[in-house]
Amino acid sequence: MMRGLVTLLTDFGAADSYVAEMKGVMLGLDPTIRFVDITHSLAGQDVMAGAWVLSHAVWAFPEGCVHLAVVDPGVGTQRKPVAIECDGHYFVGPDNGLLFPAVEGRAWKAVELNRADIHRHPVSSTFHGRDIFSPAAARLAMGQGLDAVGSPLQKIAEITFPRVKNEQGNLTGIVIKADHFGNLITNITPADLGLTDLSMLSVSIGNVVLKKGSRAYGEMTAGEALFLWGSHGRLEIAVNRGSAAARFGYKPGVRMIVKILFGAT
Amino acid sequence: MMRGLVTLLTDFGAADSYVAEMKGVMLGLDPTIRFVDITHSLAGQDVMAGAWVLSHAVWAFPEGCVHLAVVDPGVGTQRKPVAIECDGHYFVGPDNGLLFPAVEGRAWKAVELNRADIHRHPVSSTFHGRDIFSPAAARLAMGQGLDAVGSPLQKIAEITFPRVKNEQGNLTGIVIKADHFGNLITNITPADLGLTDLSMLSVSIGNVVLKKGSRAYGEMTAGEALFLWGSHGRLEIAVNRGSAAARFGYKPGVRMIVKILFGAT
Amino acid sequence: MMRGLVTLLTDFGAADSYVAEMKGVMLGLDPTIRFVDITHSLAGQDVMAGAWVLSHAVWAFPEGCVHLAVVDPGVGTQRKPVAIECDGHYFVGPDNGLLFPAVEGRAWKAVELNRADIHRHPVSSTFHGRDIFSPAAARLAMGQGLDAVGSPLQKIAEITFPRVKNEQGNLTGIVIKADHFGNLITNITPADLGLTDLSMLSVSIGNVVLKKGSRAYGEMTAGEALFLWGSHGRLEIAVNRGSAAARFGYKPGVRMIVKILFGAT
Repeated sequence: MMRGLVTLLTDFGAADSYVAEMKGVMLGLDPTIRFVDITHSLAGQDVMAGAWVLSHAVWAFPEGCVHLAVVDPGVGTQRKPVAIECDGHYFVGPDNGLLFPAVEGRAWKAVELNRADIHRHPVSSTFHGRDIFSPAAARLAMGQGLDAVGSPLQKIAEITFPRVKNEQGNLTGIVIKADHFGNLITNITPADLGLTDLSMLSVSIGNVVLKKGSRAYGEMTAGEALFLWGSHGRLEIAVNRGSAAARFGYKPGVRMIVKILFGAT
Repeated sequence: MMRGLVTLLTDFGAADSYVAEMKGVMLGLDPTIRFVDITHSLAGQDVMAGAWVLSHAVWAFPEGCVHLAVVDPGVGTQRKPVAIECDGHYFVGPDNGLLFPAVEGRAWKAVELNRADIHRHPVSSTFHGRDIFSPAAARLAMGQGLDAVGSPLQKIAEITFPRVKNEQGNLTGIVIKADHFGNLITNITPADLGLTDLSMLSVSIGNVVLKKGSRAYGEMTAGEALFLWGSHGRLEIAVNRGSAAARFGYKPGVRMIVKILFGAT
Repeated sequence: MMRGLVTLLTDFGAADSYVAEMKGVMLGLDPTIRFVDITHSLAGQDVMAGAWVLSHAVWAFPEGCVHLAVVDPGVGTQRKPVAIECDGHYFVGPDNGLLFPAVEGRAWKAVELNRADIHRHPVSSTFHGRDIFSPAAARLAMGQGLDAVGSPLQKIAEITFPRVKNEQGNLTGIVIKADHFGNLITNITPADLGLTDLSMLSVSIGNVVLKKGSRAYGEMTAGEALFLWGSHGRLEIAVNRGSAAARFGYKPGVRMIVKILFGAT
C-alpha cells in the first residue's frame, strides 16, 4: 500500500508557478510527500478532456495514492470542492464532473472540503488548487481519512463520455481525442463490438474505409493507415510512422464519426 | 523543516538533457535529494520573467528548501555564481538579478561560489548550472551551510519590477505577463490602491473600460472581460472561459498600460 | 551507490497519460521508487534523436540508476525488448539502437525481456513501455539483477551518429540538432580536431565564415554569431542572446555542413 504519493493533473501549463506552489504547500504539511505529474498540458478549462486522461491514468497506480486534479473554470463560485475515496484511491478536486469518470461504476464515498480550519489562508477565490485542494490532498496522503478533510456528500457532479450508438446493428462511435502521435482514439470498446478480433471488420472514417485490423502500428508499411485496439482498450486509428490526425484532418472539438462495417471488404 | 529538496527554475526547455544532467550531478552527491520543477519553459534568457516566477513561487515552500535558478545569458563571463540564505530558504544561481526579487525586503546573506574544490570538473564555460550551481545546491540541500560553498559577498545584483505610477491620484500600472490561461497579470497591488474592495473601481486597458471588479472568473458570463485580485495579490484582467491576452492583443515585450479609474462608471 | 531511481526518456509528449501510467506500474512494484524525467518531448519516433539525448544525459547520473527509454516505432513487432547493464548503470527499452550510443565503447551485458511472468498482463501490443519495460525497470531499480528480468543476449541493435569526415586535412562535420536556445550542436569533438584551442580556427556554415572561437556565449556582443565547445564537448555554433538555428536557417532533418578552416582568417 502506497503512502505519501500525490499525482497531479491540471490545465495550468508548464510556464507558470501554479503547480509548484501546490507542491510547496503540500511539502509544508509533510516534507516526505512525493509527486507524479500526470499532465499539466490539458487544453484550458476542458473538463471532459481532463476527465478522460485522469480516468485512464489513475488505475495504473497502486492503492493509497492521492489524485489531485484541477480543471476548474468555476473556481470561486458555487461549485463544491470535494474529495472522494474509491477502491483504496483518493481523488481531490472541483465537483464539476472532472473526477466522476475515474470512479464511475465503482463504489465510492465523497466529502465536501468545507473545513476552513485546514484551508490555507487567505483562500484566494482564483486558486483553490493551492489553498483548498492541496492541503486536503496532503492530509489524505499522510494517511488521514476523508473525515479529516470534510463532511459527507451524497452526490457528486457527473459527466459521461459519449457512448457508441447501435442502430439496427450499425455501430457508430466518435473520435475522443488525438494523442501526441496523432493516433485517433475513439470511444469504441470490445464490449461495444461483442468481439476482440478485428480481422473481420472494416472501419470507415471520413470518406475512407480501412480494411482489416492490426495488432501493432509497425505491422503496416510506413505511411499506411490502420486500426487496432489501443493500450486503454479503445479502438484507435493510426498511421504507421505518421499522424492519423493530420491524415484525416482531425480538429479538437469537431465531431468525427467512426463507423464499424462488419464483414465488409 | 525541509531537508534534501531542491526546486529548479531554468530557461532550458523540456527537450534537451540539461535539466536531467543537473539532477544527476546532485544525486551523485546525495542520492536522497528530491526535486520539484518550478518551470523550465521561461522565454530564453529573460532574467526578469524568471525572477517574477521565482519570487512568486518560492515562499509557498517550507523552510529548508534550496531553490536553484538558472537564466544565465552571461554564463562563463564575469558575472558571479552565488548562493543566498534568506528566511530559512537557500537560493543558488547567477548573480544577474534573477534571485533578487525573491529576497527583496528581507534579510539575506550571500556567498560567491568560488570554491573550485567543490565544482564539477572540468567546468564547462557554457553550463555552470551543471558544474557550479548543482554541486552547491546539493551541498546546501544536504544541510551544509553557506560557508561550505563559498565566500561572503556584501552585494548582489538587483533588478526590480516596474512600479505603479501615481500622478496626481491617477494610478497607472502595466501588464507584466500573460499566464497560461491568457490572464493578464499586472504590477498593481492592494497597497498601490490603498484598498482591496474593487467594487468602486473601473479599469481601462487599451481603449476599453472594464467596470466593477469581480471575485472569481466564473462570476461573469462566458466570454466577458473582468478584473480581480489574482492569487499572487496582483490585479489581473481576465476573460471568463476565454483569453484576455487574445482579447486585448497582448504581446510579450510590448508595454501595455492599465489605468485605475476611481469611482468612474 | 544509487538505489531505486529510474530516469525516463520517451517521445510520448506531455499531454497524454502514458508516462504517468509507466510510473504507476513501477510504484505498484515498489512504492519507494523515484523518478527523474530526462525528456518526453523528443520528435515522434526519432530513434537517433532519442539516442543522442540519452547518451549525453545518463553519465551525469550516479551508478545504480536505471534508465528507461522508449522511442519505439516497432512496438509489438519482432524487435526485442531488452535490458543492458553497463558500468553500474542499467538501461531498459526497445532493441532498435536507441540504447546503443549510451554504452558504445564500454563493456556491457544485455538480456532480452522475455520473462512473461514479470510482464504486466494483458500485454498491450501498442504499449510495451507500460507492460514490459516498466516492470523490468522497477525490478532493476529494486536491486534485482539482469538475470531476474530476462535471458542473455549476445548482440544488440546498433546505431551510430554521423562521423566527422577528414579529406586530406579538410574536416567537415554536420549539425546534429538545435537545442532549446537555437544553439547548433555539431558532431565535431576536440579529438577530431586534435586540439582544444579554438583561437586559430575559422568555421564555415552555410555561406558564412565565423572567425576565432569563443569560450562563452557572452564574450560576443548581443546578436553576434560565434563558435565554442559546448557542455557535451561538441563544437557548437551560437548567437549571443539570439538563435543560431534561426540565423542560419536550420531545419531538423535537413543536412547542414560545418567546415573547419585551420588558420584561415
